[in-house]
Amino acid sequence: MTIVRQVTSRHNDLFKDLRKLLADPAAYRKLGRVWLEGDHLCRALLERGRTPARAIVTESGWAVPALEALARNAPEVVCVPDALMRELSGLESPAPIGFLIDAGTAVVPQPARDTIVLDRLQDPGNVGSILRTASAMGFAQVIALKGSVALWSPKVLRAGMGAHFALALVEGAAIGDVAALGLPIVGTHLRDARWLHETTLPTPLAWVFGHEGQGMSDAVTAACTLRVRIAQPGGEESLNVAAAAAMCLYESARQRRPA
Amino acid sequence: MTIVRQVTSRHNDLFKDLRKLLADPAAYRKLGRVWLEGDHLCRALLERGRTPARAIVTESGWAVPALEALARNAPEVVCVPDALMRELSGLESPAPIGFLIDAGTAVVPQPARDTIVLDRLQDPGNVGSILRTASAMGFAQVIALKGSVALWSPKVLRAGMGAHFALALVEGAAIGDVAALGLPIVGTHLRDARWLHETTLPTPLAWVFGHEGQGMSDAVTAACTLRVRIAQPGGEESLNVAAAAAMCLYESARQRRPA
Repeated sequence: MTIVRQVTSRHNDLFKDLRKLLADPAAYRKLGRVWLEGDHLCRALLERGRTPARAIVTESGWAVPALEALARNAPEVVCVPDALMRELSGLESPAPIGFLIDAGTAVVPQPARDTIVLDRLQDPGNVGSILRTASAMGFAQVIALKGSVALWSPKVLRAGMGAHFALALVEGAAIGDVAALGLPIVGTHLRDARWLHETTLPTPLAWVFGHEGQGMSDAVTAACTLRVRIAQPGGEESLNVAAAAAMCLYESARQRRPA
Repeated sequence: MTIVRQVTSRHNDLFKDLRKLLADPAAYRKLGRVWLEGDHLCRALLERGRTPARAIVTESGWAVPALEALARNAPEVVCVPDALMRELSGLESPAPIGFLIDAGTAVVPQPARDTIVLDRLQDPGNVGSILRTASAMGFAQVIALKGSVALWSPKVLRAGMGAHFALALVEGAAIGDVAALGLPIVGTHLRDARWLHETTLPTPLAWVFGHEGQGMSDAVTAACTLRVRIAQPGGEESLNVAAAAAMCLYESARQRRPA
């Protein structure tokens, strides 16, 4: 049974949290709520069997049967004027629907499973792309070290295209937490490193990807049990970190296929 | 010999073109000039042996010896108040220096060389990342089909991190222009496709990457001589197109290495 409410005042308390979530990419950590804007993210959540706390839909969206049906997956629907939704959007073209979901409880890193470690990555587009790649390549655990961009921020969610809901995401970790898992830790590095395409990779493993400008920190580099580098026949150009991650995870997956 | 001028009026004709270049990502096609903002792009240009038409530097940048030396690579330096530079910037933190360069003459696609084809890609970050990957992996020719984002726009330049200057870039092409090169055309597709990791790839070849939402158009799909798909052991999630491109170019380069 879904409760449907019409709210026309922008001063309604309902929108306070939403405004905070839009103003501060890490606000979900305090508020315990995450804002999923757009029907693609909303559908991706439902496909993973999760239920939103609340749907917010524009009046014109509510008039579209497919969006009304989507909204009714929440126990409570708030219907707002289109103009008000524009204030609740981080997009140039605001979406007609969004879900508010519980941020969920802290996830504890698990041993013995393929893992991605993000060492202070900053760019939401890069992180979202890496989450998509991780999910597609079967790496279901992602650990963001302290100093990384907030994983559940609107921009990372948008770039992640729903991959968030398929992954166990850990935030604010230290490299010691990763080392404690007992997995081989593999990082890309330009010095004292073996060629990726000539290296037999361990299974399971933790792949580490470092800061866009600085690469891995010294402490993280020291924690690596294996360092690899990607051969670049065009010259030693630097690769975008999400592109480098794609190559590393592709190579991991390729080696595991039966010949 | 470098001419150095001080300009303090925002109404100076010098800045008219710059404002157009900032307002319209494709304006360089009409104006014949491209704006490179930031010392990283400026240095990347010089490293490729190219000369800028003009340097624009802030007064505080001019006081930094390394930036003055960088600016003096141009035949003409325009020194502007810091406040004026903020109006000439597309960045949240404006750079203290930028180069104006000639957009260059149209590049004609060349046969018999490894090529990347962009079929209506829209996201500047994706395209910049693909240009970096192309350059690193030795694919020196990139052909953007009509409807693709403007390759020399400020956002693509920023994401490309200097890769533009290492590549032959063709814009506004039709798929017929690509077919006329006589190269095998290889695209990623979910239907009637072979597994990438099980496929011996031709050399040289043209790799095609399609629109972020729609993939390759029907005409481009029909022009492909080979279609491959990337195995995704985590399930049939969609990959970001720049991540998929990274995997494809990595696999091409890997197969060419001596065992």
